[in-house]
Amino acid sequence: MELYDLVGMNDLRFSPFCWRTKAALAYKKIPYTTIPVRYVDKDKIAFSGQGQVPVIKDNGTVVYDSWAIAGYLEDKQPDPKLFPGLGLKEACRFFNLYVDRTLNPAIVRVIVPDIFAIVDPADREYFRTTREQRLGVSFAEVAARRDESRLRLHALLADLEATITGQDYFFGLLTYADLCLFGSLKWVTVVSKEPLFDSAPALRAWWGRIQERLGL
Amino acid sequence: MELYDLVGMNDLRFSPFCWRTKAALAYKKIPYTTIPVRYVDKDKIAFSGQGQVPVIKDNGTVVYDSWAIAGYLEDKQPDPKLFPGLGLKEACRFFNLYVDRTLNPAIVRVIVPDIFAIVDPADREYFRTTREQRLGVSFAEVAARRDESRLRLHALLADLEATITGQDYFFGLLTYADLCLFGSLKWVTVVSKEPLFDSAPALRAWWGRIQERLGL
Repeated sequence: MELYDLVGMNDLRFSPFCWRTKAALAYKKIPYTTIPVRYVDKDKIAFSGQGQVPVIKDNGTVVYDSWAIAGYLEDKQPDPKLFPGLGLKEACRFFNLYVDRTLNPAIVRVIVPDIFAIVDPADREYFRTTREQRLGVSFAEVAARRDESRLRLHALLADLEATITGQDYFFGLLTYADLCLFGSLKWVTVVSKEPLFDSAPALRAWWGRIQERLGL
Repeated sequence: MELYDLVGMNDLRFSPFCWRTKAALAYKKIPYTTIPVRYVDKDKIAFSGQGQVPVIKDNGTVVYDSWAIAGYLEDKQPDPKLFPGLGLKEACRFFNLYVDRTLNPAIVRVIVPDIFAIVDPADREYFRTTREQRLGVSFAEVAARRDESRLRLHALLADLEATITGQDYFFGLLTYADLCLFGSLKWVTVVSKEPLFDSAPALRAWWGRIQERLGL
């Protein structure tokens, strides 16, 4: 199994979506090697018919998109399960979408200067152009609003804290929902020193638990 | 079983949290009567030790808070189940929190003028004061930003549309997650003419399906 994995300076692996896939591979103990890909290296993954990582190649089978990859891995090696019960694949899909569309955009507004600092020099122009377009404002403006963005992020972390309090995992037992969130928090912690857990002791405990469980 | 239920002018029942409870009672076919309560009628529910509806009284047992009531009803009459499998109570708790803290606040910013128009005249001052404080801005300011708030709400409805596309219910099978969302959309549709489904055909189909299933 080969994983095409986003890379920054000093071989730093930071993509939250690639970390989801690495978490799923680790949880299922599927051996894999990674091929580092910068944003400008679209040619390296052109064989997948699209331009974003993660992409996996498994004996000639090509799968892209972290959600599709999770489904592929679950079929390939059912145990231990990412979706360990009736309704949990759909519940994880909702959680996955929440992380993509609510949590990650709130994170980006806080850590985008940190990401910019660690992307490969060849990626800087691409990164700035695409992210300023996506955010609808310049990086200077994002930086100026950082304190306001932190309030928004910490409100979402408080919601996650309320959910995980009294539970070991987000849906009680470990599911792919935990791996989605793992990907996002791994992303924050590898690129920045942003404190996440100062007001979230249960989330901090979960973070230790999931890292230990995955060995990542 | 008695349900203390928020009431507006012309006996209009509009609270999203009370609708969650009514949906759970309807789904389980538990007979109940309602006692209408205005915001100013705190004395009517003082016996519950707190000041918010829904409150249920079941042969002397008093339960408040829609999430706690759902758990009580599930224990009292297990079938049909609100949490029909391993991990689904926790997954519903996350969905419930998402509706409370992400969806409902986005809805309020759009429909608060409509709610103000239907609350009992005796409730108007209480409603305005508490909601302006919660929103951090005056009703005039909320009204002035209504178009911007609609964009935010429709972005969230697009997320729900993406989740429900290709599925009958939010977690595949019917769970309390559907009843949480039912409560919020019922709230919108009884107080306002705000269009919700113009760009959300799968959500519209779900809305028809859940209303028919509950008979509400």
